[in-house]
Amino acid sequence: MNIFIIGLGLIGGSLAKSLRSSGFADEIIGFDRAAENLSFCLENKLIDGAAEVLEGAKAADIIILATPVDGILELMPALLDQLDEQVVVDMGSTKKEIVELASKHPKGQNFVAAHPMAGIENSGPAASFEQLFTDKVAIICNPEKNARMPLNLVKLLFKALNMKLIYMDAEEHDKDLAYLSHLSHILSFSLALTAYNVEDKERNIYNLAGGGFASTVRLAGSSAAMWNPIFLQNKDNMLEALDLYISNLSLFKEHIQNEDKEGLNQLMEKSNTIYKIINQSL
Amino acid sequence: MNIFIIGLGLIGGSLAKSLRSSGFADEIIGFDRAAENLSFCLENKLIDGAAEVLEGAKAADIIILATPVDGILELMPALLDQLDEQVVVDMGSTKKEIVELASKHPKGQNFVAAHPMAGIENSGPAASFEQLFTDKVAIICNPEKNARMPLNLVKLLFKALNMKLIYMDAEEHDKDLAYLSHLSHILSFSLALTAYNVEDKERNIYNLAGGGFASTVRLAGSSAAMWNPIFLQNKDNMLEALDLYISNLSLFKEHIQNEDKEGLNQLMEKSNTIYKIINQSL
Repeated sequence: MNIFIIGLGLIGGSLAKSLRSSGFADEIIGFDRAAENLSFCLENKLIDGAAEVLEGAKAADIIILATPVDGILELMPALLDQLDEQVVVDMGSTKKEIVELASKHPKGQNFVAAHPMAGIENSGPAASFEQLFTDKVAIICNPEKNARMPLNLVKLLFKALNMKLIYMDAEEHDKDLAYLSHLSHILSFSLALTAYNVEDKERNIYNLAGGGFASTVRLAGSSAAMWNPIFLQNKDNMLEALDLYISNLSLFKEHIQNEDKEGLNQLMEKSNTIYKIINQSL
Repeated sequence: MNIFIIGLGLIGGSLAKSLRSSGFADEIIGFDRAAENLSFCLENKLIDGAAEVLEGAKAADIIILATPVDGILELMPALLDQLDEQVVVDMGSTKKEIVELASKHPKGQNFVAAHPMAGIENSGPAASFEQLFTDKVAIICNPEKNARMPLNLVKLLFKALNMKLIYMDAEEHDKDLAYLSHLSHILSFSLALTAYNVEDKERNIYNLAGGGFASTVRLAGSSAAMWNPIFLQNKDNMLEALDLYISNLSLFKEHIQNEDKEGLNQLMEKSNTIYKIINQSL
């Protein structure tokens, strides 16, 4: 299978490594707007060659869009315009706008809207690794909009990555992900900013940061280029999630303000119960 | 050295394991209000025996208060009243009220205010493990208030736990910890509550929770009995930290609302920079 990967960051680089080692890919060609990503992948033999977008897409069997989600909205219709015999699949973290755009395209049935739920706080091809996707969940949105063959090819691709497939409606996907992924990133970014506000250069309080802070602040290392268009494409759900979150946080604040021990206990014990349920799924 | 541990939870249990294996403790006696914690520690030989508070304290060389911080405020003066030849050291996560109380006691110089910065989201002696403290930071507050010998004994105790010692003023400690530990816990508790608010029992969205959510929600498993008195004893700093945090979160919300791409980028890039600095310390 000849694979063309557009966007050679953490996801694109890890796809190249994993699809090659699994034997799914016979040839991997890549493209990235950033010259350093492209040359890293060529020098480290993650890809067999480089090509411009249209040229690479025409020569490939499967075209993978592994760019930030604003790039997917831009590239997907341009590619579908030019391609007839190829599958285009995206790896984006938002799905509603992307599925809507594909629905309007006459060749939209050849575009599979996917979201491999795998990522770390580090970005770029140097952070990529072969096992990034192993045993993680891959979501395919609105498979009923696809022709049978493109869908089957993408299913086999995720199987080669050792991922568990789930099917969802794009709108539902974006709502759930607002709470289960996008919100967590904003919380971490905000925690880093807040800790910075109180940092005293003389004392360097970061030296005191323990394991609890470390895990909560981890996502603050995430790429702005990736997350900016996610937050904006998922605007309505993000605003709803942030409002709900701020109201929960304000309950804590109110109970602390009033020294309401019982109220605090109830909030924390409810949270403990939820954590136990969540933890069984994690 | 004969050690008496009051409070046999995660910290007390881990202290017992570590002080025994390091050879620092010749005998370890324990007390816990919860009968199941006491019997667990006896059955699993974490402690050599059990004793009531006063009886155990009188027979020991070092008394360790490893209870929630409200218990420390209650027990410390009662113990100092009765003891002359022993060191009392606490393991509490807040220090200002505790140091103030000890300062007022005529034998306060025999009480060392300490905070080993080690913990996990699980609680109770069954979650304890020998390496919990290894290579972590232990803070001693206001050592100038101590007599030389009690301070030296506690230094040796932390050395036996393989911890790095730091000295701080109690007020400074509570302020820094509000931002670097206590706030993270409230953020995680609130995230669990928020995810629960949107959970649909039919769909069970928790199955979608990925690694980013998992690390951010981890502390929501933390013990309410431990954290309640920490939040209340550190009330003023917590309220300040929460206000600052909510204002940072609101900046994200405002930029998303206004679809202000540039504003979002600036916030995230600043957060990335801070994360890199923090990450060097972690």
